[in-house]
Amino acid sequence: MDTKVQQKIGLKHGSGGRAMRQLIEDVFLSLASPVDGIGLSALDDGAAIRVGDRWLVITTDSHVVHPIFFPGGDIGRISVSGTVNDLAMMGATEPVGLTCAVIIEEGFPRADLERVVASMRETAKEAGAPFVTGDTKVMGKGQVDGLLLNTTGVALADRVVSDAGLRAGDLLVVTGSIGDHGMAVMARRHDLRLEGDLRSDVAPINGLVRAALAAGGEDVVAMKDPTRGGVAGVLHEMAAKGGVGIVVDEPSLPVNDEVRAAGEMIGIDPLLVANEGKAVIGVRARSADKVLAALRAHPLGARATVFARAIAERPGAVILDTGFGRRMLAEPEGELLPRIC
Amino acid sequence: MDTKVQQKIGLKHGSGGRAMRQLIEDVFLSLASPVDGIGLSALDDGAAIRVGDRWLVITTDSHVVHPIFFPGGDIGRISVSGTVNDLAMMGATEPVGLTCAVIIEEGFPRADLERVVASMRETAKEAGAPFVTGDTKVMGKGQVDGLLLNTTGVALADRVVSDAGLRAGDLLVVTGSIGDHGMAVMARRHDLRLEGDLRSDVAPINGLVRAALAAGGEDVVAMKDPTRGGVAGVLHEMAAKGGVGIVVDEPSLPVNDEVRAAGEMIGIDPLLVANEGKAVIGVRARSADKVLAALRAHPLGARATVFARAIAERPGAVILDTGFGRRMLAEPEGELLPRIC
Repeated sequence: MDTKVQQKIGLKHGSGGRAMRQLIEDVFLSLASPVDGIGLSALDDGAAIRVGDRWLVITTDSHVVHPIFFPGGDIGRISVSGTVNDLAMMGATEPVGLTCAVIIEEGFPRADLERVVASMRETAKEAGAPFVTGDTKVMGKGQVDGLLLNTTGVALADRVVSDAGLRAGDLLVVTGSIGDHGMAVMARRHDLRLEGDLRSDVAPINGLVRAALAAGGEDVVAMKDPTRGGVAGVLHEMAAKGGVGIVVDEPSLPVNDEVRAAGEMIGIDPLLVANEGKAVIGVRARSADKVLAALRAHPLGARATVFARAIAERPGAVILDTGFGRRMLAEPEGELLPRIC
Repeated sequence: MDTKVQQKIGLKHGSGGRAMRQLIEDVFLSLASPVDGIGLSALDDGAAIRVGDRWLVITTDSHVVHPIFFPGGDIGRISVSGTVNDLAMMGATEPVGLTCAVIIEEGFPRADLERVVASMRETAKEAGAPFVTGDTKVMGKGQVDGLLLNTTGVALADRVVSDAGLRAGDLLVVTGSIGDHGMAVMARRHDLRLEGDLRSDVAPINGLVRAALAAGGEDVVAMKDPTRGGVAGVLHEMAAKGGVGIVVDEPSLPVNDEVRAAGEMIGIDPLLVANEGKAVIGVRARSADKVLAALRAHPLGARATVFARAIAERPGAVILDTGFGRRMLAEPEGELLPRIC
């Protein structure tokens, strides 16, 4: 019997790591069309298509987070933030339209649905992003777990920023503390009792990114939001696509005490955990101070910091400098946290 | 206890009928934003947003059809056709980009996934519609039934056709036989043994619609594809939005023998059943012949026919003329066929 026929999809194929990238390359890439644009050949998180002298930027995301309400947010806030942020990562900080497609399990409480929709409305308002169309499906009891959302976003941009623009000497900025979303969801899911206030960072950061772009201009050369796969996943993608090595100064990474504690308890590195309100921004060294100042002046970027730099050696590698020594940071592989977003 | 808190979502809320429309009005409409455009205030199947002197048309659809492979098609072909057709119904027959968001159950056979993706690729090619970006999520075993797809489509158009343009005297054309998709899926699901070849009509009809628009120009005043809720649902929507009555000449409706037989066996009127490769087109009477000729010259429109007309009396009502007498055609309400698309 053909072994290929027997292959099954596993949780790791949705993890944002190596297995997912492989599945996309092997199966979904065949869908990609030869259009004049950016990101298409990779069926990347977002795509930009030439329309006259501008770019039409499109991104889509399904959200399956469990539980749908968690400390700091809910599935509605994630769906809007995720889509707005994916657009922003390409330099499109002013969405023209969002879509909202819901799949609901029969018997789902209407009050919960209304709470999620209210959260979507608030978040969209915060982002200045208008919903324009939607779709509603209901599946039978037991055929889907609760509520799933898909949000697609469309924007127009004059310039597109990719995640492939790093070159040696560039600096990498993270816009705030890392690991908050993933740790908050995991703690909630497993009913961990932790001291302090462990909350998801989920937020639309298009305004923050707009400030960075205004300050850095063309010197902002690469952006990506560290969702599934965490900061580690983003660094691997940026290193591979840019053909550079990346050295991370670990002690400079902002990590909240509660996240660090939860990470130690569960045994998971905050670098591998999803964020929903942060960006990793690559910037030419000469403009790093300007960009950093602009980020810090924004309420969502107060703890922005330079935490890594691109080097010419070891292209594709991500090296962690712990302050005591150096080690390779592996690309995330498996299902650390299924249904994290 | 507040009864509202106890309310649950039911299958009827995803049926394309009155209950779904009510849910959208009560819950999702609050998301709609005051943008310059068409369809936004209703969070309609599609939206058109002013961009310079053109329209950016956006539509989104999730697909939950069960079984995912059925006679005449599969979930991949439906997802592409559904989205391409929704764009076409607004007059946007040349998609700029499609997105593909998949949600996969852990353990789903990889070979089936590849078969679905191949079908999407073929259908997209047929429609001349390029996939540009995607998203992949995996849920644990038992958390979702097999495979769900969301496809969003974006297009630019110089003119937008709505489903609200009917006025008294206009004629309604259906582009071919009705009820094929719904009956084929239902027969397959219930393992009905029927003679003949009962097959879904699922197909992208943007080329067909382009031919109709080229022939009819501004005299094509309303279009809608009769998916969930069937032709009956479309007629109710067009009658309500246009402020007209509609009289259907039932004997002129093209219905395949197998569909009629299955409908009689199950006790369901083909008028209420989903189609995935048909359009109902409202046209000024003076241009009906031209439009009909253009449709019939296309392989997907060979059986196109005028089957109804708009009248000034009884605005909002749909009247069925059976050839023996007249009766009111009720708006579909409940879940005739959950997971039909």
